[in-house]
Amino acid sequence: MGTVVFNIDPQLGQTSYPVISLAICDLRLVDDTRWPWTLLIPRIPHMVEMIDISPELRSQVWLEIDHISRVMRDQFSPSKLNVAWLGNQVRQLHIHIIARYQDDEAWPNPVWGVGNAKPYDTAELNARLSILRTSLK
Amino acid sequence: MGTVVFNIDPQLGQTSYPVISLAICDLRLVDDTRWPWTLLIPRIPHMVEMIDISPELRSQVWLEIDHISRVMRDQFSPSKLNVAWLGNQVRQLHIHIIARYQDDEAWPNPVWGVGNAKPYDTAELNARLSILRTSLK
Repeated sequence: MGTVVFNIDPQLGQTSYPVISLAICDLRLVDDTRWPWTLLIPRIPHMVEMIDISPELRSQVWLEIDHISRVMRDQFSPSKLNVAWLGNQVRQLHIHIIARYQDDEAWPNPVWGVGNAKPYDTAELNARLSILRTSLK
Repeated sequence: MGTVVFNIDPQLGQTSYPVISLAICDLRLVDDTRWPWTLLIPRIPHMVEMIDISPELRSQVWLEIDHISRVMRDQFSPSKLNVAWLGNQVRQLHIHIIARYQDDEAWPNPVWGVGNAKPYDTAELNARLSILRTSLK
């Protein structure tokens, strides 16, 4: 009674797969094989702007962004990491960490709104989730 | 002799105005009246990825992102803040902090690559720089 429950926004949930729960954020993999594309979603109900997170938790979110950025670079060797929180379409705070390549479909532009997502098949998905989970242990 | 000098990337320099120097980053205003759009550029030579900044300086950069995000919200009352570091076109590390509105030209999409920049005239520029500098004192 009266407990505030955190739920992933349905649109984020339907377009991504759960990878692992970190101390503050859920890490998810966006269902689009064109890029290794992850989301960090702080498990804080009704959070929209990064600056509204308490300083203690916010510094932890920063560290999780650092951590996942390193894992993405180490595992996927991108030409460039793209990191962003926008929230114009889905207000629930979510941080994009995307591995970009000079021969990818959107380069050198941002990925949002470019073409159509190419969903993972089961084998591809399991392979990518395994890479991420193993490197986060 | 042998000193590594920091210079703003020419493309960033030509499309933005200096606002103020913070402890680690230069704050600049992008020359486009369609959005209050600032850049934080760490004064660290040859820096490309956030995760390559030393931990001590990186935590300061985080605080400067927080600080400027608050100033942008307080002064410009956006519908949403957009914060991003991409670097696909200009590799020198620069962090975008953009005030977005539900009636702006790109909403709900990101601003990059949308239409043509509308440069400031002198009065508009001075007004906006004054707001930013006053709120940062």
